[in-house]
Amino acid sequence: MSVSTANSPAEQPATVKIPFEKLVTLLESIFTRHGVSAENAKILAQNCASCERDGSHSHGIFRMPGYVSSLKSGWVDGAAVPVIEDCAGAMIRVDAKNGFAQPALAAARALLIEKVRANGIAMLAMRRSHHFSALWPDVEPFADEGFVALSFVNSFACVVPHGGHSAVFGTNPVAFASPQKNEPPFVFDQASSALANGDVQIAAREGRPLPAGMGVDGQGQPTTDAKAVLNGGALLPFGGHKGSSIALMVEILGAALTGGFFSGEFDWSGHVGAQTPKTGQLFIVIDPERGGNTMFAERVSQLTALVREAGQERLPGDRRFVTRQKSLAEGVTISAAEYQRLLGLSAD
Amino acid sequence: MSVSTANSPAEQPATVKIPFEKLVTLLESIFTRHGVSAENAKILAQNCASCERDGSHSHGIFRMPGYVSSLKSGWVDGAAVPVIEDCAGAMIRVDAKNGFAQPALAAARALLIEKVRANGIAMLAMRRSHHFSALWPDVEPFADEGFVALSFVNSFACVVPHGGHSAVFGTNPVAFASPQKNEPPFVFDQASSALANGDVQIAAREGRPLPAGMGVDGQGQPTTDAKAVLNGGALLPFGGHKGSSIALMVEILGAALTGGFFSGEFDWSGHVGAQTPKTGQLFIVIDPERGGNTMFAERVSQLTALVREAGQERLPGDRRFVTRQKSLAEGVTISAAEYQRLLGLSAD
Repeated sequence: MSVSTANSPAEQPATVKIPFEKLVTLLESIFTRHGVSAENAKILAQNCASCERDGSHSHGIFRMPGYVSSLKSGWVDGAAVPVIEDCAGAMIRVDAKNGFAQPALAAARALLIEKVRANGIAMLAMRRSHHFSALWPDVEPFADEGFVALSFVNSFACVVPHGGHSAVFGTNPVAFASPQKNEPPFVFDQASSALANGDVQIAAREGRPLPAGMGVDGQGQPTTDAKAVLNGGALLPFGGHKGSSIALMVEILGAALTGGFFSGEFDWSGHVGAQTPKTGQLFIVIDPERGGNTMFAERVSQLTALVREAGQERLPGDRRFVTRQKSLAEGVTISAAEYQRLLGLSAD
Repeated sequence: MSVSTANSPAEQPATVKIPFEKLVTLLESIFTRHGVSAENAKILAQNCASCERDGSHSHGIFRMPGYVSSLKSGWVDGAAVPVIEDCAGAMIRVDAKNGFAQPALAAARALLIEKVRANGIAMLAMRRSHHFSALWPDVEPFADEGFVALSFVNSFACVVPHGGHSAVFGTNPVAFASPQKNEPPFVFDQASSALANGDVQIAAREGRPLPAGMGVDGQGQPTTDAKAVLNGGALLPFGGHKGSSIALMVEILGAALTGGFFSGEFDWSGHVGAQTPKTGQLFIVIDPERGGNTMFAERVSQLTALVREAGQERLPGDRRFVTRQKSLAEGVTISAAEYQRLLGLSAD
């Protein structure tokens, strides 16, 4: 691990570069120290470290205090053992048993892929699950294996419906992953809110204003104050009524279809410090070359090339893949202060 | 059929009210007169008349001259007999054989539902199909039978990617339908462009400007001139980079996954008058109560009630259902001029 000290003229904070696997091990120790089972800790640490490695900072180590706080509150069960229900040839339901979503996905993943291979498409409907990370790490590995994957997860009520005055939806992201030919998969993960909640939290922590048109305060009035949005205010959906309809669809697919709670429905008030939304998550996974469509991955590569030629400079995922390569080559760069915080959490 | 003449003070054009079934029969005669097989004409007429009945004017009888023009050009085969490929337990592919998409869906629909009932989820991937209508009529009937349905269709290149300068995507709508308890299904059908192409066409015809931020002219500059958007210009995606990613996903699902053409790929230049995009279409249909989730429809009703309580005055589909009831009770109201145009097409 290399450490660089603050460089006053440029006012860069001191940073450390940690090898990815070492970061995983550190996070794993934090999770196990706070009641997460060894098996689950391995999955959560890999997930969180991957976000940090790829520059998804709002879902990286920034989230660790929230994980710990939620675990300490007794709101989420880090040692939960998910229960898998094999419902039909192309359908699995999973009861995450009040545990985190990523271990529940890991537990059902092999059966899901078996069903996709057998029948061309399959779905996994998860409930009683806590999703506190980015969504792209859930779908990208399917594309690495040649599948198209969609996922939808609702969260906690912090987004007002279009034209409305109070929050109903979570940030309700949609993630999509598709293989490409001889290049990394095309992957996006986007909140159906105008901003991701993690970005609002980071802005609030850093005292930065939000761009205009992203949120409202507790009186339903437009504001750029991140703290006002977090404390009694709410975010707006992206793209007006269309984004609002997508948020509603995610709420239907992530909660109604899985049997999970709606974003405004679960009650964590008895668990001081709880931060992880307890909802549901849906996966739809497709074998795109089944039935003879053997050109699929090449066609997607053709399409993304057309989009770049038409002038879109950066596609979703581009920056992530660049940052990933850099982090794997040089180590994951985090601030020295954050590193100290992590060490503190692991000894807490 | 009742006729009301122009009322000069209010400058209302003369209108006629046609019973829905009579409108279907009239449209059917137009389709058959221009080379559509009797079976296909019945399906297309029902579809187009339903759009008009429900107030989806940009996809109603406004489209009939385009259908006729495309048929006359030899670009689309109105008598095509789709070929259904039963690929796997939950996957169907359909070659529409250069015909319209709606008859191809109708041909495969029973098998699709059989697969959904058998396996919980199934998909239908259609290629070499012309979709020239709204997308909601394709998905709503699934919700009427208790299924959740998603559909994605690409069209012809008229939308620039986010930050780009030339059109790659079609208007690329996404449609979603879900049953509710004791009320009409929740259905939306939204272009991933800032505006639907039909609305631009209507604005151009009526000489109305577009709202700001919807389109660019042939030089890639922002414009509110509908004709400039249609002639060499392009639309923008809705909601910035997020809408653009949805447009890209629709292009992948509607074309790459089905084996259809991309929106910028087919060549209709040899067919003067061709207006119907020849692409592909994907359906994903889910049995939401499979596996014991028997509260599904009721949960969706609870959710849409919450959205209304939070202040969203109108949900997608609301206006359609109201207009439908009115049209069924009183007849479908169209202008006398449009009625004359239809009579002309049926004798053309």
